[in-house]
Amino acid sequence: MAFVMRREFLHFSTAELEEAIDITARLNGIVTASGVRDGLVLVFPLHTTSAVYVSDCEPSLAIDTRAALARLVPGTASYLHDAHEVKQNAAAHIRAHLAGHHVVLPITKGSLDLGTFQTVYYLELDGRRDKEVLVKIMGTDEASGPGEGAGGGGT
Amino acid sequence: MAFVMRREFLHFSTAELEEAIDITARLNGIVTASGVRDGLVLVFPLHTTSAVYVSDCEPSLAIDTRAALARLVPGTASYLHDAHEVKQNAAAHIRAHLAGHHVVLPITKGSLDLGTFQTVYYLELDGRRDKEVLVKIMGTDEASGPGEGAGGGGT
Amino acid sequence: MAFVMRREFLHFSTAELEEAIDITARLNGIVTASGVRDGLVLVFPLHTTSAVYVSDCEPSLAIDTRAALARLVPGTASYLHDAHEVKQNAAAHIRAHLAGHHVVLPITKGSLDLGTFQTVYYLELDGRRDKEVLVKIMGTDEASGPGEGAGGGGT
Repeated sequence: MAFVMRREFLHFSTAELEEAIDITARLNGIVTASGVRDGLVLVFPLHTTSAVYVSDCEPSLAIDTRAALARLVPGTASYLHDAHEVKQNAAAHIRAHLAGHHVVLPITKGSLDLGTFQTVYYLELDGRRDKEVLVKIMGTDEASGPGEGAGGGGT
Repeated sequence: MAFVMRREFLHFSTAELEEAIDITARLNGIVTASGVRDGLVLVFPLHTTSAVYVSDCEPSLAIDTRAALARLVPGTASYLHDAHEVKQNAAAHIRAHLAGHHVVLPITKGSLDLGTFQTVYYLELDGRRDKEVLVKIMGTDEASGPGEGAGGGGT
Repeated sequence: MAFVMRREFLHFSTAELEEAIDITARLNGIVTASGVRDGLVLVFPLHTTSAVYVSDCEPSLAIDTRAALARLVPGTASYLHDAHEVKQNAAAHIRAHLAGHHVVLPITKGSLDLGTFQTVYYLELDGRRDKEVLVKIMGTDEASGPGEGAGGGGT
């Protein structure tokens, strides 16, 4: 057993200003290629107008989530930040913050260790430009003991 | 000093649809049994209608927290997700998301390294069925240097 | 390459009841002093009326963020917690919870591995007293492979 760290990136450039993208399969590909069997992965946008979050696989929930964030942090409200910046994106920053910004996910047996319906989303809140998500993987390259054998897979 | 990873589970089946349960002692039991002296623990619900969060030990604050989430994400609003699913639980998903879903906690000297009044809660938002929380522990099995000796315990 | 863990603290005692403080440089100093080249750092307030979060470097956005939290969790609402405690700080607890409470940040080449404009803030929501943030660093003391070389630096 050896301790392993890997640093990879996901790149995005959305057509829309706001978009939620299922990144579960891409993340799993990165995790598998890393050789880490047992560990943690930090999925960390290098921007503060994007967020990564875990939710249900049903796609219309992502639309509901964006609508809820827009209702909680309206684009029409007045923000000091928007007096300082051309981009007028204070609401996007605060929505990304409330959406959690980054996640830490478990890795077991060389894959993301998620519940049956859990899906990882990249949430773009100020798109139409190049964005980058850091994927930092930390763990061991083979199973590390009795803890790995237990079952899982919630719903 | 050896590097250790452990994977354990907490199980829940609440009588109520919504409930906040203090899991600090159960988590500490898992941490102690793991043999990890110094590390991190990811406490990760395998569902997206539950959340784990850290708050004050005073129990009525958990009721205030649930009321705030219900006010921010009303069950009576219209959600696309609820047109696709029998369960009508879009609000529960979005509340769990805003509540943070999972936490990463410090482990020092074989126990959770929390402030004096900090309490870890499992927040069920769509209960009355079996739910599972993954507890992924990563660290070393004995103290790993001068960093461990410092004091702590905020209020 | 050796596996390293470090445990350090940041201390705060704000003049104002609410305040957002840029802690990026202080955190980077702790990370550099730790000797960890490649890893993760958990930045964890030992209180539940404070939060650490990542946002844009533009300072007025921190004021917008506090205003948004105050609008979402009004101090004037009625909270059960405030009937039990002299401090009347239920809103501060719930705001800190929604703000995310703690973060996990990547470390690469001995520094915080953040996007160009990313800034780490300590958000005090119930200040004018001593507060403490635990900084728990986990990683390796030299570069651990090909993953470290890749570029980064989002905007």
